[in-house]
Amino acid sequence: MSSQARGPDREQQPVAARPDAIRAHNLGLVLSEIHRSGALTRAELTARLGVSRSTIGALVADLAHLGLVFEHVPSGGERAGRPSHVVGPRPGGPYAVAVDLDINQITTAAVGIGGQVLARHVAPVDPHPGTPAAIARLIVDALPALRSAVGRDSRPVGVAVSVPGTVNRRDGFVEFAPNMGWRHVEFGSILGDALPANLRLTLANDANLAVLAEHIRGAARDTGDVIYLMGRIGVGAGLFAGGRAVRGFDGHAGEVGHTILNPAGPKCHCGRRGCVETYIGEKALMNLAGRRGEPTPKKVADIFAAANGGEDKAAAAVRVVAESLGRTVANLVNMLNPELVVLGGSLAGVFDFARADVERALSRHAVTRLHTELRVGQLGDDAPLLGAAELAFAPLLASPSGVMEAV
Amino acid sequence: MSSQARGPDREQQPVAARPDAIRAHNLGLVLSEIHRSGALTRAELTARLGVSRSTIGALVADLAHLGLVFEHVPSGGERAGRPSHVVGPRPGGPYAVAVDLDINQITTAAVGIGGQVLARHVAPVDPHPGTPAAIARLIVDALPALRSAVGRDSRPVGVAVSVPGTVNRRDGFVEFAPNMGWRHVEFGSILGDALPANLRLTLANDANLAVLAEHIRGAARDTGDVIYLMGRIGVGAGLFAGGRAVRGFDGHAGEVGHTILNPAGPKCHCGRRGCVETYIGEKALMNLAGRRGEPTPKKVADIFAAANGGEDKAAAAVRVVAESLGRTVANLVNMLNPELVVLGGSLAGVFDFARADVERALSRHAVTRLHTELRVGQLGDDAPLLGAAELAFAPLLASPSGVMEAV
Repeated sequence: MSSQARGPDREQQPVAARPDAIRAHNLGLVLSEIHRSGALTRAELTARLGVSRSTIGALVADLAHLGLVFEHVPSGGERAGRPSHVVGPRPGGPYAVAVDLDINQITTAAVGIGGQVLARHVAPVDPHPGTPAAIARLIVDALPALRSAVGRDSRPVGVAVSVPGTVNRRDGFVEFAPNMGWRHVEFGSILGDALPANLRLTLANDANLAVLAEHIRGAARDTGDVIYLMGRIGVGAGLFAGGRAVRGFDGHAGEVGHTILNPAGPKCHCGRRGCVETYIGEKALMNLAGRRGEPTPKKVADIFAAANGGEDKAAAAVRVVAESLGRTVANLVNMLNPELVVLGGSLAGVFDFARADVERALSRHAVTRLHTELRVGQLGDDAPLLGAAELAFAPLLASPSGVMEAV
Repeated sequence: MSSQARGPDREQQPVAARPDAIRAHNLGLVLSEIHRSGALTRAELTARLGVSRSTIGALVADLAHLGLVFEHVPSGGERAGRPSHVVGPRPGGPYAVAVDLDINQITTAAVGIGGQVLARHVAPVDPHPGTPAAIARLIVDALPALRSAVGRDSRPVGVAVSVPGTVNRRDGFVEFAPNMGWRHVEFGSILGDALPANLRLTLANDANLAVLAEHIRGAARDTGDVIYLMGRIGVGAGLFAGGRAVRGFDGHAGEVGHTILNPAGPKCHCGRRGCVETYIGEKALMNLAGRRGEPTPKKVADIFAAANGGEDKAAAAVRVVAESLGRTVANLVNMLNPELVVLGGSLAGVFDFARADVERALSRHAVTRLHTELRVGQLGDDAPLLGAAELAFAPLLASPSGVMEAV
């Protein structure tokens, strides 16, 4: 993931823990719990964070004062003894601007603390494929509509963009987004220049964001060793190992789509032969199913519908992709020994229809598959968008007071 | 890596930091610096750890009292002002028992704080391959010789074994060591039962240990995203991402040797076709070079010598392996985007002879190779052994007082 550090936390240096730093940190812990779990009672917060009831009371009061949380006693919930205050995200509180850049359309959303999509704006990319400047313009043009949808009093805390390609985590360059036709594009700067100056911008790869979202609030909760394998036109992976994101030295880890499954395989647009993408990407599925033209979400969904409806050609196509998917996952399991592989995008559809084929190929090709489980993502196609929101919220969750006093 | 927790730190639970805990932690920091860097002056320790001169003085005194370090003023080093005390590992201090289990021979070594091999014992595996019990016996039988070589006053702090196969980090089972003929062998229990009861035993995969050693004191120092690719008869990888070891959910990460390079490739002993091992393992090199029999270190070294001496068949064989090595590394680079790939075992020889071929294949097959550098390991064939010593020393370095008071 790449950070164009322009916002309030830019100059933050590591400092020894002072009382202020400890308070800022503790505010972050409380807000993070609420962000992950939604509304919680004070008693739940006290138990989860292992601090005293009065400390929680003071921290919640601080967060309320910052406009981040809202406390109430649920009606009808009065029993004997003290009522338990419920603490949740404040309606009208700050929001993250999350952007999912797909080759057909740009989705821009306002996401609240707690991960709810508060407003969503979808713009088709036309003409296709979009230039970096045109796509930056689509994003910027979506902001006023989001702002009026969430209410004039809410403020954006940052912008994060999911990119279907490799993003250099240091400089915000999109190094390689073959299906967008981009190579070494300084999209971070282009979009940053077009955004209001006070908005912190970060960019990251779509699968890296999807695994982050599924790890925080989806199929991979409480799972430290996870691979999210996402099929769109391209195929990419987001990785967690030992509870931490694996991003690689430049932020390019997870380019599974261009690992080679068979050196004698089909020609890939990247110039090599037999890349994983040529076996399990959406174009491969379309070709096998005898569908013409470029893949779109609708055309891909139609193949799964046809397979489920009994069309032999569609069913056979999904099964062939399922076999290659099992082989691909086997290589990943041999390499990284994850506890869980989460399948997203078109690969979720493949797994739903032909689970047994995927599992059989995996078991045949993995050296030692002790525990690795396969699962479909819980967040569906919103996983990269929700992951982008997590990225945009990260500074706020780390230091609620620091960010809110600067917004 | 797997831990058979039987030693003094078995019952340690996380506790809130008390003064004692802080002192124990700080002792560990000082000892770790000396372990990594060798002898250091008090002034260097003060600067590296960012604490006061008097704190360093007190910690060094404690470590000396525990029998771990030795302090002296270098002769001839007296200049104006206060002499700078040099703090180094104490001769006769505790040692780690490190074991490198290879299919032809078992190396058992006493390694001191600072990483020096103090004594080494090599036993051929005969009859070949060894049963788990026979190999455990070879290890146990080597201990008295090591003890008398290092001196009767020195004490072992633990035993760690490098295994050429996948090790379950939870239960100490060797799941799959195909070249040993082992599958699901409870080697941790077998060896543990044969060892003196007070010796903590840990097992880990050879490549995982090699990357650990190269990361601490070899080619990968100060490098957070590293892959160590080791060629022996089998091929395995040890992984670091973001400065931390990637071991996988069961400790099986890095089974690169059985990722598939070409599904139409040669039959592998694991039952599949076209595994990486069949292209870049020592048997592949031997076959390509027209050498008969099972690979041994000498036979493999002879091929490189012949290639360097101008034998066309040997040179061509190394070049063919080099091309496949480049493809293998490309898949790893696409997947994990390391800053550095360290080559060990026979792959170091391949790279030394045919570097240009490896680099060319890597550049052709990696999607975006921004920074990944290839390098030969600095620790040579001792990397797994030295990594095992690191594993055995880890509890001592984490809490010098806790371990020494229990030994």
